[in-house]
Amino acid sequence: MVVLLTVNIGRIRRDIETICAFNATPGYGYTRFSYSREDALAREYLLEECSKLGLSVTVDGVGNIRARREGEDPGAPSVMAGSHIDTVLQGGKFDGLAGTVGALEAIRTIVEADIRLKHPVELVVFSEEEGSNFSLPLAGSKAMVGRHGPEDLKKAKSPGGRSMYEAAKNAGYNPDDLPFQVLRPEDVKAMLELHIEQSVVLDSQGLPVGIVEAIAALRLFEMEISGVPNHAGATPMKLRKDPMVAAARVIAKIRDLARETPSGTTVGTVGRIFCEPNVSNVIPGKVRFTLDARDVDEPSLEGFVQAVRKTLQEESKSQGVVSEMRFLGGSKAVFLPPEITSLIESTANEREIPFMRMNSGAGHDSCLLATVTRVGMIFVPSIGGRSHVPEEDTRYEDLERGCNLLLGTLMKLAE
Amino acid sequence: MVVLLTVNIGRIRRDIETICAFNATPGYGYTRFSYSREDALAREYLLEECSKLGLSVTVDGVGNIRARREGEDPGAPSVMAGSHIDTVLQGGKFDGLAGTVGALEAIRTIVEADIRLKHPVELVVFSEEEGSNFSLPLAGSKAMVGRHGPEDLKKAKSPGGRSMYEAAKNAGYNPDDLPFQVLRPEDVKAMLELHIEQSVVLDSQGLPVGIVEAIAALRLFEMEISGVPNHAGATPMKLRKDPMVAAARVIAKIRDLARETPSGTTVGTVGRIFCEPNVSNVIPGKVRFTLDARDVDEPSLEGFVQAVRKTLQEESKSQGVVSEMRFLGGSKAVFLPPEITSLIESTANEREIPFMRMNSGAGHDSCLLATVTRVGMIFVPSIGGRSHVPEEDTRYEDLERGCNLLLGTLMKLAE
Repeated sequence: MVVLLTVNIGRIRRDIETICAFNATPGYGYTRFSYSREDALAREYLLEECSKLGLSVTVDGVGNIRARREGEDPGAPSVMAGSHIDTVLQGGKFDGLAGTVGALEAIRTIVEADIRLKHPVELVVFSEEEGSNFSLPLAGSKAMVGRHGPEDLKKAKSPGGRSMYEAAKNAGYNPDDLPFQVLRPEDVKAMLELHIEQSVVLDSQGLPVGIVEAIAALRLFEMEISGVPNHAGATPMKLRKDPMVAAARVIAKIRDLARETPSGTTVGTVGRIFCEPNVSNVIPGKVRFTLDARDVDEPSLEGFVQAVRKTLQEESKSQGVVSEMRFLGGSKAVFLPPEITSLIESTANEREIPFMRMNSGAGHDSCLLATVTRVGMIFVPSIGGRSHVPEEDTRYEDLERGCNLLLGTLMKLAE
Repeated sequence: MVVLLTVNIGRIRRDIETICAFNATPGYGYTRFSYSREDALAREYLLEECSKLGLSVTVDGVGNIRARREGEDPGAPSVMAGSHIDTVLQGGKFDGLAGTVGALEAIRTIVEADIRLKHPVELVVFSEEEGSNFSLPLAGSKAMVGRHGPEDLKKAKSPGGRSMYEAAKNAGYNPDDLPFQVLRPEDVKAMLELHIEQSVVLDSQGLPVGIVEAIAALRLFEMEISGVPNHAGATPMKLRKDPMVAAARVIAKIRDLARETPSGTTVGTVGRIFCEPNVSNVIPGKVRFTLDARDVDEPSLEGFVQAVRKTLQEESKSQGVVSEMRFLGGSKAVFLPPEITSLIESTANEREIPFMRMNSGAGHDSCLLATVTRVGMIFVPSIGGRSHVPEEDTRYEDLERGCNLLLGTLMKLAE
């Protein structure tokens, strides 16, 4: 019987607890923004751990960390593993950090067991994934793969008006070096990211691990419906041109339409709504709301978006209001290579870790890395699906199994 | 053939233009808040006009003006006519002012023609009808009929923290005198108010005048629906507890339910909505919205409110969310006495002024006066139904006919 190498969940827990003590909002969840004092202390701790393991560390122009253990073949491309360490405001303990610390522990386990591997293995820690500072999510991984450079970072501003360029510079990085630091396909063999699921699927199935097959395409829209503002008491129902009624009918229908697409995986969310003048005794003049539409199946997504557009037109006509559906942005679906998902699956089977194959509705740093290398993603359950809130939680026994799967896959890719 | 006394629309227009020149937001509609410099200038002009007519003026503890022309019978109760002169922020030229100036012109016409009347006639100008300063609508008329006194005015605060009591005092009035100034039923025979309709009914019917039969009862509610906030991409449609979907279904239904009541006059408006966290990529955790429900027919209104409550419960259950429907306030329906509406009607017929009988969905100072005396209300059309906006407009030929109807009715009541 083969004895499989395993992670030490006690050390993972210690790493998480230590880093979570660097917190800008004690008592109100966990806040660790990129370039903050808490971020600097978390990095100091991580770099100290890397130093103990003899890893060689480089930090790029926006603070992305790469900590490398050399392989037996000096010219072989490296296998990367990691995630981000920044949080949303008053977030939880596991989003990003679970995957960062999991990758650290996997490499630590390999180093301590003195496992010889052909390929280098690298811990990667991304800056500024959440977009908390500059409303620019995935900013660290985008910079790493050359999707944006110093000039883009000058344009990305915090609410206080400071650019990401200035903030990175102030934190001791040099964004002007970014063009010379872009990750090249020939330098990297594969990238693995463990992340919390941030939803209820694994938890409701009672499974410790999900193997991600695809990351959904996203299309974000803003609908604007304009009617005629009028006195709420004085205007008979049949003489109204009420954009709120039109909006309500469209929003109700969005939910039905999302459930009726051929893929069965389409999601449509109205998360933000504004009403003008937003006064109880005035029929609104204008209602604006967002539609966040996602699916791994792009034809279903396109069909859904078209059906919403048609519904908006029909309901606007029936209510005598004028409407517009503006595309705000989006991303294409990312399909993770089957040879990587199969390798994760066979590793899970070998280690007797129950799993399901699944899609990710959320975007991750790995989506950007997928433009350069082959990516694999492992999800661990979020209890009750909660995320981006202080209550965000993952059972350590689930995280342990996820990290063992990460370790096993990493070793196979690097051997 | 009897020659009927008529108003001079040129003077009405001049009065309106003169007073509208006292404007805190030139170029952005008309802003004339109670106790402001603009309000003081408007009052100076009105008092000068009253003085030219030999009227005897009293001003109460919140600035309500009463300007009296004595009748032939020294002991007879007076017939009052008037409206308010304050505006909302960046409002229009006619709301309140039309009725104030119309009443002034009616009395001016009577004085100049030297018409002997048994009863005194009084111009009444109410302070602070809109609630722009202290979020206390109808504050002037409420004070006049004794509905609130100095202590209540100390509690009504502006956003800057100044009380209506202080503001009135600072403007030169003495709110402590209010208890001695309350209008008594024996002092007044009737009250007439001309007002813009603030809706589309008259304009869409092409009629110059509406005779108000009743003022609708109002019930204001806030609905709060709580679900489970979650990632918009990661959460499958069937695992959501989305309060926005529940809210949308209820709001869409509110419009249908309002149109189905037995009275046919029920209105239900969702004018204000808040969503938390109100972020495009998060399924909302909470949605709150108001319901402003009105009808002159209280049983229909009650049935409507109950139907909305049931819909809220059903939709909340179907979406797996929790909801609450909180009563915020309201008022009972006011029915204007048939002898007054009939008198207005016969006067309109006599003067060949086309009219319709109608209800008022909006509240007016006259609702308060109705607790003390017999009230009549005359509506003139709002072009396109627009009100509380710079575009608020009424054709002067319609206003002329409304003011002639006011004059004719006033003379009959006072003779």
